[in-house]
Amino acid sequence: MKAEIIAIGSELLTPDHLDTNSLILTGRLNDAGFEVRVKTIVGDRVDDIAGVLRIALQRSDVIILCGGLGPTEDDLTRTAVAQVLGRPIFVDPDIVESLRRRFARRGYSMPAINERQAQIIQGAEILANPHGSAPGMWLVEQGIGVALLPGPPRELEAMFEAGVLPHVKSLGGGRRQAKVAINVTGMTESEVDSLVAPIYKAYPSVQTTILASVGHIALRLSRWLESGEQPQDLNEVANRIRAALGDAVFSSAGETLEAVVGGLLRKSGRTLAVAESCTSGMLAARVTSVPGSSDYFLGGVLCYSNEAKIRLCRVPEEMLAQHGAVSPEVAEALAHGTRENLKSSIGLSITGVAGPGGGSAEKPVGLVFVGWADETCTTHWRRMIPGDRETIRERAAYFALSRLRAFLM
Amino acid sequence: MKAEIIAIGSELLTPDHLDTNSLILTGRLNDAGFEVRVKTIVGDRVDDIAGVLRIALQRSDVIILCGGLGPTEDDLTRTAVAQVLGRPIFVDPDIVESLRRRFARRGYSMPAINERQAQIIQGAEILANPHGSAPGMWLVEQGIGVALLPGPPRELEAMFEAGVLPHVKSLGGGRRQAKVAINVTGMTESEVDSLVAPIYKAYPSVQTTILASVGHIALRLSRWLESGEQPQDLNEVANRIRAALGDAVFSSAGETLEAVVGGLLRKSGRTLAVAESCTSGMLAARVTSVPGSSDYFLGGVLCYSNEAKIRLCRVPEEMLAQHGAVSPEVAEALAHGTRENLKSSIGLSITGVAGPGGGSAEKPVGLVFVGWADETCTTHWRRMIPGDRETIRERAAYFALSRLRAFLM
Repeated sequence: MKAEIIAIGSELLTPDHLDTNSLILTGRLNDAGFEVRVKTIVGDRVDDIAGVLRIALQRSDVIILCGGLGPTEDDLTRTAVAQVLGRPIFVDPDIVESLRRRFARRGYSMPAINERQAQIIQGAEILANPHGSAPGMWLVEQGIGVALLPGPPRELEAMFEAGVLPHVKSLGGGRRQAKVAINVTGMTESEVDSLVAPIYKAYPSVQTTILASVGHIALRLSRWLESGEQPQDLNEVANRIRAALGDAVFSSAGETLEAVVGGLLRKSGRTLAVAESCTSGMLAARVTSVPGSSDYFLGGVLCYSNEAKIRLCRVPEEMLAQHGAVSPEVAEALAHGTRENLKSSIGLSITGVAGPGGGSAEKPVGLVFVGWADETCTTHWRRMIPGDRETIRERAAYFALSRLRAFLM
Repeated sequence: MKAEIIAIGSELLTPDHLDTNSLILTGRLNDAGFEVRVKTIVGDRVDDIAGVLRIALQRSDVIILCGGLGPTEDDLTRTAVAQVLGRPIFVDPDIVESLRRRFARRGYSMPAINERQAQIIQGAEILANPHGSAPGMWLVEQGIGVALLPGPPRELEAMFEAGVLPHVKSLGGGRRQAKVAINVTGMTESEVDSLVAPIYKAYPSVQTTILASVGHIALRLSRWLESGEQPQDLNEVANRIRAALGDAVFSSAGETLEAVVGGLLRKSGRTLAVAESCTSGMLAARVTSVPGSSDYFLGGVLCYSNEAKIRLCRVPEEMLAQHGAVSPEVAEALAHGTRENLKSSIGLSITGVAGPGGGSAEKPVGLVFVGWADETCTTHWRRMIPGDRETIRERAAYFALSRLRAFLM
């Protein structure tokens, strides 16, 4: 079954805005057995909205319109849909009354303009909006389902879930999508692809996408299943891919690298302290993005300046003078120093040249050292990271997390 | 003049991917006098691409197709465009030769499959791709400009700039878009809107959008100008809005808050050290995202645990026991301690309850204190921040930056 999403709003056609509602809707529609075949973004003009809807009615089984249900003159979705379907619009007195009550509860009287939000297209089922003022609508036109939803994500999600999904499922006929997510660290996108492409190409029924983001690669496998069918080939290709990637796979359940590392630290009963120079907090911010990370993360130092390396981590001034701040020696001294400061099991440090200035032939922009200290050893790893300042910093933090994971395993 | 963007690729119709190329293209098209009226996202199917293009040819003056120019069977943009325009495709021997040379330079021989990338639609101008293997095309069909561009952003941007923009400008007829960006901190979206809506509503020719992101509100004003016209009303509304918002406006040039704060620190010759508890590095990571921030940022401590507050910032144990880690007293002690550690001009601290656990009736999730210490005073600010863990942490870091800016002004 084919679904189509139409996002309405002139702000979505500026250089500053993306339609992100469609991502959530796509996931839910896929789960309900619908493939999203087209997404369209159109401005607040009746003719443009009507034109796009007319075409959608010729090619899709379900059409979801998002946005343009507000109270102002720019909110034209109702008008456009009524025009295309040739159905009259009327003002529903019950909705006017409930809008009035909604305003009254907040101590306001309803502006006359808000009566627009009580306009209903003939034959539509009204969808309640627990999070906002604009009600939605569900219509069926010659067997095609058409939903009108408000644009704000919180309102849209709740209304889709409660008011649209049950209708959509009943049209879907039991088809569904099975999915596997495999997250990989420590490899480049092309390294991952060269290992796994020969595998997934042998399974044309399974859709495979490779998403490179900063610090990790996400493989997404999916397969459409008819009612009662089992995803045997999907599981087979996933197992073969996992085997080919080995230890580089850190999650098959969509977890982040920091959550996986947190789990390993908690399991081992060990604690962590960090010392960050060029990343200046990015590693610690990631580690502590996991709720409950206070069980294993103690804190650390932001040693952006040499002054801070000396004062906060007792790195000898001579060492800085002799080897420079970006060196294996200083990386290890920082890891050692932060571990000593906080009496943690593990000390982990990052020092590097993030650029754009400050690079040299010997120590170019992108050179990063990660230092490690625990009760048995002090060591370091070196990596050259390509990219701009923020990419280098983010990848350096991920590189440290990835080394931490490897050591804990 | 009307422009339309068609993004091609089945991965853009999954729950994991957005078409972001269109943002860059929209900005450039606007500058060239074209309004983007519709954006469509369509999968790797000839019929779907052809259907979308047929409709676009009926309503737009310029059509930009992105993606689907690779060497595999999934890359169908060329085929679909040739079919709709009723033009033959031929293989260009010069392009085959240059693709062969490109592979040879990298030490490979060209796979036979890559010959597809040398397929040219009759009458098309070939657009060079300095950053990749797929050449692009520019065609004019009954006065409508049609561009075929590769999907990877780096390839697309360079090719659009060099190969498409000159053609588009010659079609555009001198119309252009004037813009003003006003960035605001320390106010909510509705506070900003209630102050500025009465102003911008009096200028219907100026398009105004308000974008709320974590920590700041961005106002974007734009106005279409005919050849030779001056943006007087745009400047007038921008000035009135700036006057209404006063000190809350931190930039009219698109700068980030951290860049503005960095400029103020540099100008004043003062240095900064931080102590971060719940944000654990997010403030320092922001401050140091500005190149050259080592001129004024010295470093600081990540005092996530009480242990770290005591050991790294000499917060008295009794103070923690009496007032708790999230308190005005501890916020000030942290600011004072980090300033002492690094002999900086200013010490700035953050302590708060980020959740989801750890809240109480007295100290609920979202309660944040920012501490300040400099040569003349030690003080703090209290704020309740709604939202989830990451939102609270990000907003807390912005709140501290915003206070720092206010103090420096």
